[in-house]
Amino acid sequence: MDILGLDKKIADWLQEDIGSGDITTLATVPAGAKTNAVIHAKEAGILAGVEAARRVFGLLDGEVEFAGVLADGAKLAPGSVIATLDGNARSILTGERLALNLLQHLSGVATRTHKLAAIAAPYGARLVDTRKTTPGMRLLDKYAVKVGGGANHRLGLYDAMLIKDNHIKVAGGIRAALERARAYASHMTKIEIEVEDLAGVEEALAGKADVIMLDNMAPDMMAEAVRLIDHRAVVEASGGIDETTLAAAAESGVDVISVGALTHSVKALDISMDIGRIK
Amino acid sequence: MDILGLDKKIADWLQEDIGSGDITTLATVPAGAKTNAVIHAKEAGILAGVEAARRVFGLLDGEVEFAGVLADGAKLAPGSVIATLDGNARSILTGERLALNLLQHLSGVATRTHKLAAIAAPYGARLVDTRKTTPGMRLLDKYAVKVGGGANHRLGLYDAMLIKDNHIKVAGGIRAALERARAYASHMTKIEIEVEDLAGVEEALAGKADVIMLDNMAPDMMAEAVRLIDHRAVVEASGGIDETTLAAAAESGVDVISVGALTHSVKALDISMDIGRIK
Amino acid sequence: MDILGLDKKIADWLQEDIGSGDITTLATVPAGAKTNAVIHAKEAGILAGVEAARRVFGLLDGEVEFAGVLADGAKLAPGSVIATLDGNARSILTGERLALNLLQHLSGVATRTHKLAAIAAPYGARLVDTRKTTPGMRLLDKYAVKVGGGANHRLGLYDAMLIKDNHIKVAGGIRAALERARAYASHMTKIEIEVEDLAGVEEALAGKADVIMLDNMAPDMMAEAVRLIDHRAVVEASGGIDETTLAAAAESGVDVISVGALTHSVKALDISMDIGRIK
Amino acid sequence: MDILGLDKKIADWLQEDIGSGDITTLATVPAGAKTNAVIHAKEAGILAGVEAARRVFGLLDGEVEFAGVLADGAKLAPGSVIATLDGNARSILTGERLALNLLQHLSGVATRTHKLAAIAAPYGARLVDTRKTTPGMRLLDKYAVKVGGGANHRLGLYDAMLIKDNHIKVAGGIRAALERARAYASHMTKIEIEVEDLAGVEEALAGKADVIMLDNMAPDMMAEAVRLIDHRAVVEASGGIDETTLAAAAESGVDVISVGALTHSVKALDISMDIGRIK
Amino acid sequence: MDILGLDKKIADWLQEDIGSGDITTLATVPAGAKTNAVIHAKEAGILAGVEAARRVFGLLDGEVEFAGVLADGAKLAPGSVIATLDGNARSILTGERLALNLLQHLSGVATRTHKLAAIAAPYGARLVDTRKTTPGMRLLDKYAVKVGGGANHRLGLYDAMLIKDNHIKVAGGIRAALERARAYASHMTKIEIEVEDLAGVEEALAGKADVIMLDNMAPDMMAEAVRLIDHRAVVEASGGIDETTLAAAAESGVDVISVGALTHSVKALDISMDIGRIK
Amino acid sequence: MDILGLDKKIADWLQEDIGSGDITTLATVPAGAKTNAVIHAKEAGILAGVEAARRVFGLLDGEVEFAGVLADGAKLAPGSVIATLDGNARSILTGERLALNLLQHLSGVATRTHKLAAIAAPYGARLVDTRKTTPGMRLLDKYAVKVGGGANHRLGLYDAMLIKDNHIKVAGGIRAALERARAYASHMTKIEIEVEDLAGVEEALAGKADVIMLDNMAPDMMAEAVRLIDHRAVVEASGGIDETTLAAAAESGVDVISVGALTHSVKALDISMDIGRIK
Repeated sequence: MDILGLDKKIADWLQEDIGSGDITTLATVPAGAKTNAVIHAKEAGILAGVEAARRVFGLLDGEVEFAGVLADGAKLAPGSVIATLDGNARSILTGERLALNLLQHLSGVATRTHKLAAIAAPYGARLVDTRKTTPGMRLLDKYAVKVGGGANHRLGLYDAMLIKDNHIKVAGGIRAALERARAYASHMTKIEIEVEDLAGVEEALAGKADVIMLDNMAPDMMAEAVRLIDHRAVVEASGGIDETTLAAAAESGVDVISVGALTHSVKALDISMDIGRIK
Repeated sequence: MDILGLDKKIADWLQEDIGSGDITTLATVPAGAKTNAVIHAKEAGILAGVEAARRVFGLLDGEVEFAGVLADGAKLAPGSVIATLDGNARSILTGERLALNLLQHLSGVATRTHKLAAIAAPYGARLVDTRKTTPGMRLLDKYAVKVGGGANHRLGLYDAMLIKDNHIKVAGGIRAALERARAYASHMTKIEIEVEDLAGVEEALAGKADVIMLDNMAPDMMAEAVRLIDHRAVVEASGGIDETTLAAAAESGVDVISVGALTHSVKALDISMDIGRIK
Repeated sequence: MDILGLDKKIADWLQEDIGSGDITTLATVPAGAKTNAVIHAKEAGILAGVEAARRVFGLLDGEVEFAGVLADGAKLAPGSVIATLDGNARSILTGERLALNLLQHLSGVATRTHKLAAIAAPYGARLVDTRKTTPGMRLLDKYAVKVGGGANHRLGLYDAMLIKDNHIKVAGGIRAALERARAYASHMTKIEIEVEDLAGVEEALAGKADVIMLDNMAPDMMAEAVRLIDHRAVVEASGGIDETTLAAAAESGVDVISVGALTHSVKALDISMDIGRIK
Repeated sequence: MDILGLDKKIADWLQEDIGSGDITTLATVPAGAKTNAVIHAKEAGILAGVEAARRVFGLLDGEVEFAGVLADGAKLAPGSVIATLDGNARSILTGERLALNLLQHLSGVATRTHKLAAIAAPYGARLVDTRKTTPGMRLLDKYAVKVGGGANHRLGLYDAMLIKDNHIKVAGGIRAALERARAYASHMTKIEIEVEDLAGVEEALAGKADVIMLDNMAPDMMAEAVRLIDHRAVVEASGGIDETTLAAAAESGVDVISVGALTHSVKALDISMDIGRIK
Repeated sequence: MDILGLDKKIADWLQEDIGSGDITTLATVPAGAKTNAVIHAKEAGILAGVEAARRVFGLLDGEVEFAGVLADGAKLAPGSVIATLDGNARSILTGERLALNLLQHLSGVATRTHKLAAIAAPYGARLVDTRKTTPGMRLLDKYAVKVGGGANHRLGLYDAMLIKDNHIKVAGGIRAALERARAYASHMTKIEIEVEDLAGVEEALAGKADVIMLDNMAPDMMAEAVRLIDHRAVVEASGGIDETTLAAAAESGVDVISVGALTHSVKALDISMDIGRIK
Repeated sequence: MDILGLDKKIADWLQEDIGSGDITTLATVPAGAKTNAVIHAKEAGILAGVEAARRVFGLLDGEVEFAGVLADGAKLAPGSVIATLDGNARSILTGERLALNLLQHLSGVATRTHKLAAIAAPYGARLVDTRKTTPGMRLLDKYAVKVGGGANHRLGLYDAMLIKDNHIKVAGGIRAALERARAYASHMTKIEIEVEDLAGVEEALAGKADVIMLDNMAPDMMAEAVRLIDHRAVVEASGGIDETTLAAAAESGVDVISVGALTHSVKALDISMDIGRIK
């Protein structure tokens, strides 16, 4: 079963592209023609999306054989063969673009995550994503972050509480917000709160937050906050962190660093498909 | 009615984020609290996505007032106010992320398109997009390209024929592919074909292609092809064109230049929301 | 995959008929009973819809064997065997009506198209359909037209432009309408315009319409228009054309003749199913 | 609420026609232009489908005013004004074709039903439809039959039992089939059985059928069957009855006459729309 | 095909439970681990829901082997083995709760029905359900009633007429209501009416109701009504009947007794699953 | 917007009941008739479901005025008026059954929860539900538990980890299971584990479980476990707890007590609707 709805999404995406029919392929490719094809990388990076690509062809035509040569997480060099296909030529040509769009996007996410994770690794900090994902691709984007060596923050608004500045303003302060959250929350729900300074950290500790997010703090203040918290809560750094600022954040001793750009500004990795002869 | 399915998509995207409930907001914000908010840019660019953002709140809560201050196509500077909101505080907080994700992504598309269009403009070439769009966002991405000053290539596989190298290989050559296409096509369908050299151009002309795509040609060869075609077909340049190579392509005299990166590698524009006091 | 949504439609149509259960069959036919059946024509015509009928049983019960004896496009005589079935008796009986409704309707479309195409053939004119199809059956109806020897006009409002009298009235004339159309259209879109007299033809030519539709013109005027256009645009005749007027229209030299009645007034072809013994 | 799913169907049918956009109207008609329009008959008949047409525009654009001038069941003459519209010109032009397709089809059903009902009326027989309806339009087709002066047979396989020859063959005879049906049926379900001769009638009476269908009987045998049944069951005549044979069937004294052609072979009634000036 | 929509429901119910993923199972159970499991009863009762449970696992993972040991209708004792499973350990664990929830609920319905049917049996009265079913489970609940030895009343508002006190009040009396019903009804529709006293019974007989429902009558009055009706209509007793009052109602000679509590107040039967070793 | 999908469910449930039409109401109640109605309790309990009932009528007919007299959580006595309705008589009659089915079921849940919560209250233990809810009604059932004075456990498999005996068996012990869970879990996820004895408690503490579930322990052992855990984890009691055993469990000092019967064995509260005169 398509529990997480991936097949449903892929079918919708195919429908978005194919509409009332792939008229070029219907016109130029005979109905029964068979061929093979190879999907390969044209630049270096980390591969993600092989199963999504496989489902594209699987849904279009259950008889296309899609053989994954590399698996998600593999390091790609220019020319790396990712997968080979064998089957109906129309199906392969009609599915090509969506399969490549997915591979390129998800490998783009994994590749950037991998670079950033390599920076954070020596400091023992966990690199995580945010909810700044492509609409409709939340689970795929978060999956690609894991493939690239990152971890996931909450999946959505439903599976954990993250009290942000706007909530605090509405609730009338950190302490009040934490009290309301605790009263409402199931005993199975973790509560994180965003703070901007050390006074906020103190208040969050007093309110027994499970996780404290240090928002846009300078590295020094982060280090001070880490000392203050002293393992009484998980510490997360957040706010515009990128390749240039990540090491300093990690060095401060925080447990977790969240980076929105992992998923909101994705550079597609160059991947393409070559088709063989008609058989 | 939601003819093009945008409301359906926005509802799905809200569902993706909200799932079984925005527990943070339910816990910390009283049910009846009212507030206002402002959406503003944090960097310069071209705005796109205001109507999509409006629908996010419109679908969540028909009584949130969303007042667009700037319209799609406006030039943003850091601090530019894009829209103001007034209404139920829970609705505004729950919709914030999706609205921003859409604005950031679509403004990112429009901003890059605008930069490239400015390069092509002096040469009279039309900058167009491709089918390398974010799965599920084809119509929105193509809309943002228009907002940024570009034009659209075909919308999908269904509304025009584009015979690519793989189709030609299967059909047994340019001439054969064009003959099959003509026999299948409605009298209302345009036919484009991809060629890689001048011999291909000649063959495409002989086959009476409506549009000829010059794939990855050097600027000199493009100029030669333009002369050869001499207005007997529309001429499109394509293949890895970016900020550094666009001017040369445009100078060759082609009618249309297609750039996949307009939509496959989008850098989100930084846009955020500030909430006011509870009323 | 069900790219064009046919399976989804057939499932909806089965649901429309079966609702909360085929109580007659459940009551009178034992769950495990097997039988065979034959679908045959009761009058002469052109067969269309065999694959749709096959899917009816395929969706109801993947184990019913549906063996097509004749293929779409075959000439039927009274008694012609179209297909045989073998499998669960309940499934065969429950699917019978929808399968026959589809075969009867689509063969009705193909049969009438075939008659009209035979009239147009000697003159080299292409017989095409319109958007006057049965709601929900656009692609099937247009498919049946092709089976009967006709061709398709555009599939819907999305894949080509057809500027009709009402659009011209709104735009302020043929020339203005064509200018607006050209400015909006992708370089991949064909533009057709409807004209009622020779002055309209001249204006359409000046505006470089790709296709000119001669609406309700007398045959003499059509011939004159054809001369005037002189291959500078495709010429289509339209407007209440039927068996009695088609030859005259075709004789005028137009390229394409569109006939709404191919799909809006369909006489079902008589086709029925006989069941064999229970096995 | 759209309990019977009509809005859902109309939205699907609009989507079928509009797809990724009505590009002609978007190009040639300004976004804010207002106009009015009139829908009128071009031939005589019985009107059906006004509410369906109203919903087409209501769904497309809630602000188009659709004023019904005539109601379903009205007698149309050439030129009769059916409805007037006032509102956004784009919405009116985009919805035109579907609204007319529905009016033409449903008025076609009502018109033919009305002619046949006029033949049956003097004999006191009830003219009813069958399940030979257009796939996807069961409830609309059956509604149009009522508008035309006919009545409905069961709506589908779920709301009554009709034991046909194929069921009888499987069950091993009329008596056995009726016994099985009675055992399975709710005490709220009526049971009809098809018979071909007087022996069948006797058997059906013995099995206490609620309704007996005389299938393809000659009028004399029908009259004999009516006498035999003597009000112990409702009597229905069926089988290829049309304008030429209906009177004889009705004269035999049957209670109900079912005619498949009411819905399987519909001649569209000619109805069109004229648009006014842009305001 | 999933004609009655059961698979669609089960998929929705799985989605309700699994949402964005069964994180416990994903974390603790290796992807490829295989195991077996046994589903068994922990208290006595009548089994119902085996096919629904099978579909839960079938939809989640087509390769889990679900072997039914007992069939619906079987008498369960504590410890009775209902089914065994063999396959992917993740699939088995993820599907466990929904499969058990269905088995427990439906067996609860069947068990109570069985107890009540045993009381009614000696009197020859048919025990039937009502429309007081769990929203979304109408067909399953009614199926479980049949498994338990009861029969079904109408399935919904669409397949028979039941004129209740509120309808009578609106229509202006029993006679008027029956007349309206007869005029509207297809010749294939049965009409039942609710009466509260013997005068009502007389009126219902005069109006030729097919079924007369005696609502909340004392047993003596019921017996009198049965005599009065004298097989001219089917007689149904209804109104708060339970274990303590059923025998008296049945003894009165009514044909049918309807009991809402069969489905509106269900005590789940205790059924659980034990998993074996990982293989 | 219908974020949590309640409207979608109610529409499906109405469709389940109404199908192709409420023929009784269509026949006996004039289209334009207006009436009023009152919904009242027939036995004592806690009210839940008023908003769901309101949506039933709101979806059926936006013009029915539904005035809630009592709110969810109110104590009902026999005769308590819950809500009054005013509007179209057909809409009120057609929606009656579903509205009552929901009110009866949800008030049944709230009423039983209230009784059990009253037992647990003096001991300071939190009464919570489980995932043993009615398929399709998870969020409504859990809402009714809160209305009745209980709290919610996790909402599904997605929002927290609960490692049960079957997971432990697969993972190879409590410690191993906890390690795997910690490695997989987001830093925002709580982890609960089920233990059966004090050794298990020790192991769970060593593995730093956030919540420890004492499964089917005797009250003495529970008390011992509470002492052992000493606030290092939240303590939950579970396993067949009902009215007779709840006090002893609560007295042991556990923080949370989960009771499946709150939602798996619901006795509907008796609630009905009376209609007024036609206006």
